[in-house]
Amino acid sequence: MLRIKLSDRARNTPPSPIRKLAHLASKAKKAGIHVYHLNIGQPDIESPAEFFEGLRRFNQKVVAYDQSQGNEALCIAWSRYVNKTLGLQTRPEQFLITVGASEALVFLFMTCCDPGDEVIIFDPTYANYLGFAAIAGVHLVPVPSDIENNFALPERGEIERRITKRTRAILLCSPNNPTGTVYSAEELRFLLALCEENNIFLIVDETYREFVYDELRPLSILQLAPESERVIVVDSLSKRFSLCGARIGCLLTSNQEVLATTLHIAQARLAAPTIDQFAAAYMMENIGGDYLERVRAEFQSRRDALYSALKRIPDVAVHKPKGAFYMVVRLPVEDAEDFASFLLSGFCHLNRTTFIAPAAGFYMQNSQGLQQARFAYVLEKGEIERAIEVLAAGLAKYRA
Amino acid sequence: MLRIKLSDRARNTPPSPIRKLAHLASKAKKAGIHVYHLNIGQPDIESPAEFFEGLRRFNQKVVAYDQSQGNEALCIAWSRYVNKTLGLQTRPEQFLITVGASEALVFLFMTCCDPGDEVIIFDPTYANYLGFAAIAGVHLVPVPSDIENNFALPERGEIERRITKRTRAILLCSPNNPTGTVYSAEELRFLLALCEENNIFLIVDETYREFVYDELRPLSILQLAPESERVIVVDSLSKRFSLCGARIGCLLTSNQEVLATTLHIAQARLAAPTIDQFAAAYMMENIGGDYLERVRAEFQSRRDALYSALKRIPDVAVHKPKGAFYMVVRLPVEDAEDFASFLLSGFCHLNRTTFIAPAAGFYMQNSQGLQQARFAYVLEKGEIERAIEVLAAGLAKYRA
Repeated sequence: MLRIKLSDRARNTPPSPIRKLAHLASKAKKAGIHVYHLNIGQPDIESPAEFFEGLRRFNQKVVAYDQSQGNEALCIAWSRYVNKTLGLQTRPEQFLITVGASEALVFLFMTCCDPGDEVIIFDPTYANYLGFAAIAGVHLVPVPSDIENNFALPERGEIERRITKRTRAILLCSPNNPTGTVYSAEELRFLLALCEENNIFLIVDETYREFVYDELRPLSILQLAPESERVIVVDSLSKRFSLCGARIGCLLTSNQEVLATTLHIAQARLAAPTIDQFAAAYMMENIGGDYLERVRAEFQSRRDALYSALKRIPDVAVHKPKGAFYMVVRLPVEDAEDFASFLLSGFCHLNRTTFIAPAAGFYMQNSQGLQQARFAYVLEKGEIERAIEVLAAGLAKYRA
Repeated sequence: MLRIKLSDRARNTPPSPIRKLAHLASKAKKAGIHVYHLNIGQPDIESPAEFFEGLRRFNQKVVAYDQSQGNEALCIAWSRYVNKTLGLQTRPEQFLITVGASEALVFLFMTCCDPGDEVIIFDPTYANYLGFAAIAGVHLVPVPSDIENNFALPERGEIERRITKRTRAILLCSPNNPTGTVYSAEELRFLLALCEENNIFLIVDETYREFVYDELRPLSILQLAPESERVIVVDSLSKRFSLCGARIGCLLTSNQEVLATTLHIAQARLAAPTIDQFAAAYMMENIGGDYLERVRAEFQSRRDALYSALKRIPDVAVHKPKGAFYMVVRLPVEDAEDFASFLLSGFCHLNRTTFIAPAAGFYMQNSQGLQQARFAYVLEKGEIERAIEVLAAGLAKYRA
């Protein structure tokens, strides 16, 4: 029998760089080694009691399809939430509920781009954007941002010269995954003006919006351009409320045509999960502001702990980012992936080891990231400190 | 400001024909009219108690991401279920859990086809296949099946002459949505041979597998070709266990390359919902065979009721299908969509009306379906009888 050929696009879809070394971690665990997971954005924070109370209150006898646009109560609750926390005046009809921010981004790539069209992103980038682009046949065009410059937004000229006739949107993640960078109001206004001049969309992934530290307050592009037809916000409950597994995201825009057209795509997949939406709606109507403030403060103190611990290791280049729960760090190694594999398979310290994500998978122009790794500070302070002790010992052994 | 152009593919994605007239139904309801919903495959059957018991047992403090491939316990339970009910020897690693059968089909279109590649389907077809194809840039090639012939599989020549160099798969839904047709073992063997000769995939959507009536027993393509590398089954809990809103489906195949490659796409969207998978796993391990047998018997008696009621209306052409919970019926009208709209907006009988799905949206070659409508028998027998009384009265008035 002839082998049946699979599609080129599927064979070219990269495996997740975050999950790539997972098999080594599994092996280490089976050998009885404790693995500190700093590789994946899965916080250990407990999900809100109000979500579980919402789950308990689900008493429909038939777990039926919800609306393709999303559960009505959830759209209302989410609209109220952003209006209250950001001083906006959104309406529930401006929301389309999706299966995580992931689905929102796939939908938007499809709605805004035909195959071969281009979207500008900033390098390093959230690795799954590459997967969404492969799925949608979209060509991502990276503008490099620099670790030496704390991954700030590149110069105007650097962005402008990459805009072509096929550019349909700029996609920004702020606060940023993987770098933790929080873009300022000035930077957002600058991007908005650039999109206006070139008549393209500005898509802002605000999944980490509330996770900003020190003097910063949450900032949404919608506060700067509440009525703009070119602004689309992608949002998610995954990180904010430690509900990664509930798979609830949304897109939010004033652009009626984007909403109506994306809805046709959304109808084909029928609806997001009914029970999760129900519980989320209950949670968002009933949760107090103290939950998020507690979580925010916790992440800030973890960031400080991770930063201090990394600072103490010779030859490690680290800056202190202002948001999300990630840092991209330059390690004194030639190949961070080789070092990450070594930590998982060639090394342990007091029967422990540390799992970090090599940054190369977050760069489209790979060579820049070879020496870098992404650290997700999703463990308690004490655990982070022990994880970095282990890493430091591993680094010493690796370089010896 | 220039209008921002959306993509051609998005503007060409058709709205769901099933949900198309929903706004008219909403209006009728607001005017106090009771609407019998025969338009949508959302059964009124209660979801299993074991699913809700599974929900109650979810006691993880963090609603974390599950595996991209699917919850391990669910893969084990689903494998046991098909092994027990179909006499197979599948392994849990052959399953990839998806957000409904919808996501499984989108994934498979992407894995098997590059944009512009072709998949053969049978007309009329499940309307959302058109949406999935639009999303994946796949060209669906319809082979007509005929209402006069109970929508049996077309002749070999009819299928063969549509196979080109770009054909990557034949997609069959059995038992069929929208026609209710159940394909025989002979028909499945014939398709399998055709796929082997042409070295293409055979994808069988077995969402309705257990809903077969009279003398029939559930039949899976896997019983005929358990080891075939070209066979991929798409399955779902939505209809079988009345869990449409849980959004749990899967793909199942012996083809390791399909599984591994599709997993890369699945990793980009992270995972299916954690809580729904947990509850589904518990349910599948604990549910007895009596639930499904009760539901099957219920649908069989509804089919009989719908068939008898339709038979009594003059000039309505109806056959008695053997599976799923749909019938495609030819009405004595020029344009079934116009008639369906009339029922919702120009008519009521004792303050009631009936919502049916015009069949045109299920046909790629539309003219064939203009006089036809799909009836979903998802209401209790008495309700179905009243719904058809209303329809008959509406038809008399519409034709007068």
